[in-house]
Amino acid sequence: MNDEYYMNIALNLAKTVSGQTSPNPPVGSVVVKNGEMLGFGAHLKAGEAHAEAHALNMAGDKAKGATIYVTLEPCSHHGRTPPCADLIVNKEISRAVIAVTDPNEKVAGRGIEKLQAAGIEVELGVLEKEAAEINSVFFHYTNTKTPYVTMKSAVSLDGKTATVTGDSKWITGEAARLDVHHYRHTHDAILVGVETVIADNPSLTTRIPNDGKNPTRVILDTSLRTPLDAAVINDQEADTWLFTGKDVTEKEVAPFKEKNGVVIVRMEQLTIENVLYDLGSKGIMSLFVEGGATVNGSFLEERRINQLITYIAPKLIGGKTAPTSIEGNGFQSMADTFSLDIKDVEMIDKDIKIIAELGKEEADVYRNN
Amino acid sequence: MNDEYYMNIALNLAKTVSGQTSPNPPVGSVVVKNGEMLGFGAHLKAGEAHAEAHALNMAGDKAKGATIYVTLEPCSHHGRTPPCADLIVNKEISRAVIAVTDPNEKVAGRGIEKLQAAGIEVELGVLEKEAAEINSVFFHYTNTKTPYVTMKSAVSLDGKTATVTGDSKWITGEAARLDVHHYRHTHDAILVGVETVIADNPSLTTRIPNDGKNPTRVILDTSLRTPLDAAVINDQEADTWLFTGKDVTEKEVAPFKEKNGVVIVRMEQLTIENVLYDLGSKGIMSLFVEGGATVNGSFLEERRINQLITYIAPKLIGGKTAPTSIEGNGFQSMADTFSLDIKDVEMIDKDIKIIAELGKEEADVYRNN
Repeated sequence: MNDEYYMNIALNLAKTVSGQTSPNPPVGSVVVKNGEMLGFGAHLKAGEAHAEAHALNMAGDKAKGATIYVTLEPCSHHGRTPPCADLIVNKEISRAVIAVTDPNEKVAGRGIEKLQAAGIEVELGVLEKEAAEINSVFFHYTNTKTPYVTMKSAVSLDGKTATVTGDSKWITGEAARLDVHHYRHTHDAILVGVETVIADNPSLTTRIPNDGKNPTRVILDTSLRTPLDAAVINDQEADTWLFTGKDVTEKEVAPFKEKNGVVIVRMEQLTIENVLYDLGSKGIMSLFVEGGATVNGSFLEERRINQLITYIAPKLIGGKTAPTSIEGNGFQSMADTFSLDIKDVEMIDKDIKIIAELGKEEADVYRNN
Repeated sequence: MNDEYYMNIALNLAKTVSGQTSPNPPVGSVVVKNGEMLGFGAHLKAGEAHAEAHALNMAGDKAKGATIYVTLEPCSHHGRTPPCADLIVNKEISRAVIAVTDPNEKVAGRGIEKLQAAGIEVELGVLEKEAAEINSVFFHYTNTKTPYVTMKSAVSLDGKTATVTGDSKWITGEAARLDVHHYRHTHDAILVGVETVIADNPSLTTRIPNDGKNPTRVILDTSLRTPLDAAVINDQEADTWLFTGKDVTEKEVAPFKEKNGVVIVRMEQLTIENVLYDLGSKGIMSLFVEGGATVNGSFLEERRINQLITYIAPKLIGGKTAPTSIEGNGFQSMADTFSLDIKDVEMIDKDIKIIAELGKEEADVYRNN
């Protein structure tokens, strides 16, 4: 068994907690000595023990002289729990294998320095790419202070989301629609425009067979047109944040304030960028955008899409005026269009699912901003 | 080696001539005795020798007592060549393995009867499904007297074929654009609307590294607005058939008649159905439809699509008024939409290619018409 073998176990542990650790990253860890597994751990929830602590705790006194595998650099600072680097040193671990460094400015190499200063042999970069992928949300959030944005669309093979009369039930099959709920489960927040609330009165909750975690519901609603009797305002299944423009009056806001779990956020300028910074400041690391077409168009024009999940049903709808997934003004020239990389294509029953991520060229645009 | 093994060789021979045998089907054949390959054959071109004749000719005197494998029932009638069933009998073949019967009313079981009457052992249905797939164009043409219609579209991940300003160069990459030319090569005819001719002045020829076969160019042009200096009218790279409405005058038509290879077809009613029957009567078995959006919409509304090839580029264009692949009036309700089955999804460089075929439900609609 080599380092990759054990790191892979740690990565799989991290994957199982992906989406439940915000604003912390999902991390996995294993402790091994002489080819014997001594401890497993994953960070389950912000404020609770880190992955290393769980794994070392399970290993107990046997940890002395062992190797610890961690998917992310151990923390070096006192947060809500003591520094993991100190714990590793105290347990007299002799070797630490780490997949990737933590970009968080409070860590950023200091965890590794602490281990090395204590004479622990450190191996960095084992399955680094895989670890960075699992941490893409956390890294994006840490680097930009804004949530990682995943947009979802469900379309026919000719790119329509409904017929010319607005009929959209259903484009995709049951299995694809269930798959969407797994994304709701793993995201901190879900975002739609007020038009969607008015048209469909959705609950935006997670409906999967085994207890789903509901995301915070974010509604973009410049003029506060959300009906006071809307499901998201009354069902108390999750918090609902209404982002409005500055012209909304206190009188208009008042009846919403009486609703449990409903928060009105009045923005000087209701742009996608400003909303994302506000969500980031509130600890939202991952945002699932379910449109409609105009809201999706705003995200596109501000180039604020990290991942796009597209479900394509094997149907043709036709119609010049039938709606598509992303509208708004759009780009004028092909040179300006937003480029992605295809990460995965799979069949979900009779529908196609495409996972695309922000392309390399786009990522450069981000960095230059 | 079993029957499937040899039939598979025959099927692969048939595949290599797919698209060059119209109005005949692609057929492959092998002759085998005591595990020794004695002859290979494929039908290369209408009017020339059939697959069985080539294979038996190669086998020569050794054919006596051998087994012949054919992907389609041998013909029983005198066409431009003598009946293959007679040839098989004369060569004293002892066993014939046939993948699928020929639906052509001049054959339809009579070839098999002839062999059996001569005491030849006949095995029918070996790799039948695979053979039917290779013959889907021929079977459709034989059953409906209209060409098998393959529609192509190239879109962004949000279903657009151009930006709001009409910029469309390029949506997909070079490899996907080359792939399109292989479809032109294997189709008898290519169809576009006059808007495409006016906007792009395309040549609609096959541009592939190894000599491509140019399809006959079919332009739907109700009011004869095709410019007299258009490439398709002047380049003589392939025949061009202009389908117009009945109100086009002799005077308007006259200058086109002077062009080599240009034919004007005036239709009482210029519907897709009427055009398809006319093309069928002219021996066009397979039609490749390259739009634009309005023409594609007409094919969809008349439910005349057998196969859809969709190239999706990993780009987002956006825009409420940006064009999509299939427009026209479209369907009113989801229940009326056209359903397909996904046959294959693959990556072509950075683009996704989806092959979808007329769905089972749609096929039932066809049968009931």
